[in-house]
Amino acid sequence: MKIALFDAGAGPRTGVVKGDRIYPTGLAGSTVDLIERWNELAPGLAGVGTGEGHALSAVRLLAPVPRPGKIFAIGLNYADHIAESAMGTPECQVWFTKAVTSINPPYAPVLIARGAPKVDYEVEMVAVIGKRGKHIAREDAHRHVFGYCVGNDVTERGWQLETPQWSLGKSFDTHAPIGPWITTTDEIGDPHGLDLSCSVNGEVRQSSNTRHLVFNLWDQIAHLSQAMTLEPGDLLFTGTPGGVGMAMKPPQFLKAGDTVRCEIAGLGAIETTMQDEA
Amino acid sequence: MKIALFDAGAGPRTGVVKGDRIYPTGLAGSTVDLIERWNELAPGLAGVGTGEGHALSAVRLLAPVPRPGKIFAIGLNYADHIAESAMGTPECQVWFTKAVTSINPPYAPVLIARGAPKVDYEVEMVAVIGKRGKHIAREDAHRHVFGYCVGNDVTERGWQLETPQWSLGKSFDTHAPIGPWITTTDEIGDPHGLDLSCSVNGEVRQSSNTRHLVFNLWDQIAHLSQAMTLEPGDLLFTGTPGGVGMAMKPPQFLKAGDTVRCEIAGLGAIETTMQDEA
Repeated sequence: MKIALFDAGAGPRTGVVKGDRIYPTGLAGSTVDLIERWNELAPGLAGVGTGEGHALSAVRLLAPVPRPGKIFAIGLNYADHIAESAMGTPECQVWFTKAVTSINPPYAPVLIARGAPKVDYEVEMVAVIGKRGKHIAREDAHRHVFGYCVGNDVTERGWQLETPQWSLGKSFDTHAPIGPWITTTDEIGDPHGLDLSCSVNGEVRQSSNTRHLVFNLWDQIAHLSQAMTLEPGDLLFTGTPGGVGMAMKPPQFLKAGDTVRCEIAGLGAIETTMQDEA
Repeated sequence: MKIALFDAGAGPRTGVVKGDRIYPTGLAGSTVDLIERWNELAPGLAGVGTGEGHALSAVRLLAPVPRPGKIFAIGLNYADHIAESAMGTPECQVWFTKAVTSINPPYAPVLIARGAPKVDYEVEMVAVIGKRGKHIAREDAHRHVFGYCVGNDVTERGWQLETPQWSLGKSFDTHAPIGPWITTTDEIGDPHGLDLSCSVNGEVRQSSNTRHLVFNLWDQIAHLSQAMTLEPGDLLFTGTPGGVGMAMKPPQFLKAGDTVRCEIAGLGAIETTMQDEA
């Protein structure tokens, strides 16, 4: 099932996407409320879609989880991106965070903030946690995932690398566009075989497959949950492949008017036009 | 005014602390709801305290902001702590994050997680954001603070230093005890002259004054808000002075049964007994 948050003029509502139409769930509450009650709600939601609904093109899609509790993102997790970053393959998982205020809708403009012009893209598969857990075993990790969406781990390289800690440079407002919706795990099966790509103004910059993750999603969930309770709606950005703008010779950063499209097989695409902050 | 979140047996309620008693505000909603409506509510709250109330000793104090949007914490921000960490004085502010799931009440046990025994203390003044803002000027920064509380930036040193990124080692469940309540800015004035200390089993380990911050709170708010919108309830951990357990020779980490007390003049004290995770 594909679960979206959308606005057709009457405020945010949850909906089920089928083909090129979206059907309101009719349920009150946020996407996370729905995720938390999924076992109870899923049978009823399977029947949604016989009514009228809206053309997807006629609604505004919002970030499917507009206010997660946590956003953790793993760095240096594809071999080609490690090589282009001139860093060694980490023995341990390297995690940073993105602020919840950086969440952005899938098709909304992404801002180039004043004084922070070195903005770069990073396409990533994003896992949405479905079930609360701590000390989750690797072999149980899949049970804690609700679904997946496309994410762009937008990064301001100046701020990221000005200090040894990356989280602030990863946390600018609008720098975490996600969507276009959450595709539930049953539609995807093993998430480690999905083509993912990012293009800028139609030119493909990143193109890989999630099978190339250094630490796969189950490793990631097992590791993080040794420290922290993972909760429904938490987001894990699972790493980006090679091809970022900073690694081009000379480096190419995004500028106002550029269009950035991130796509993952089975999960859809998100597309952003860059805009200077007012 | 001193604003607390407490439970006297009927669930979490907001209250005003006067002397050794706490008086329910009678208002529905969280501490953050109250902060957002402060200008409207403050006149009425000033009169709270003529009724019966509860002895502070008879209620359970909760974390005054149990679920902030963001928790940012600055590293290497007192000269003596920089020296003991064998690091140079940073030219730029070095920020990391603590996960919102690490928040803990002021007197509740702090857990030593399985496989993560190198747990250390860091007393810090914590600023609670009161007013939303982006690109906040240094001279306006004080207007965006609602108040202050005591925080212990509990840190697992193994996980903190196993990779270059500190945030995960700073984010273990229960590792952000805060409280005992929020003291509003009008009671404190300039927050850069407060004695702060941390003791373990009665032995003073850290003792300094917030006047020794390398980057003061106004610098911090101006810097962070260039990147991110700060929102009511966001927490800023403003740095810890020298004296952490890791820097002792040999290093001393906390063990089950240890009592850690963090105190800041005018803001009160929080006290924790360390406990092994079940």
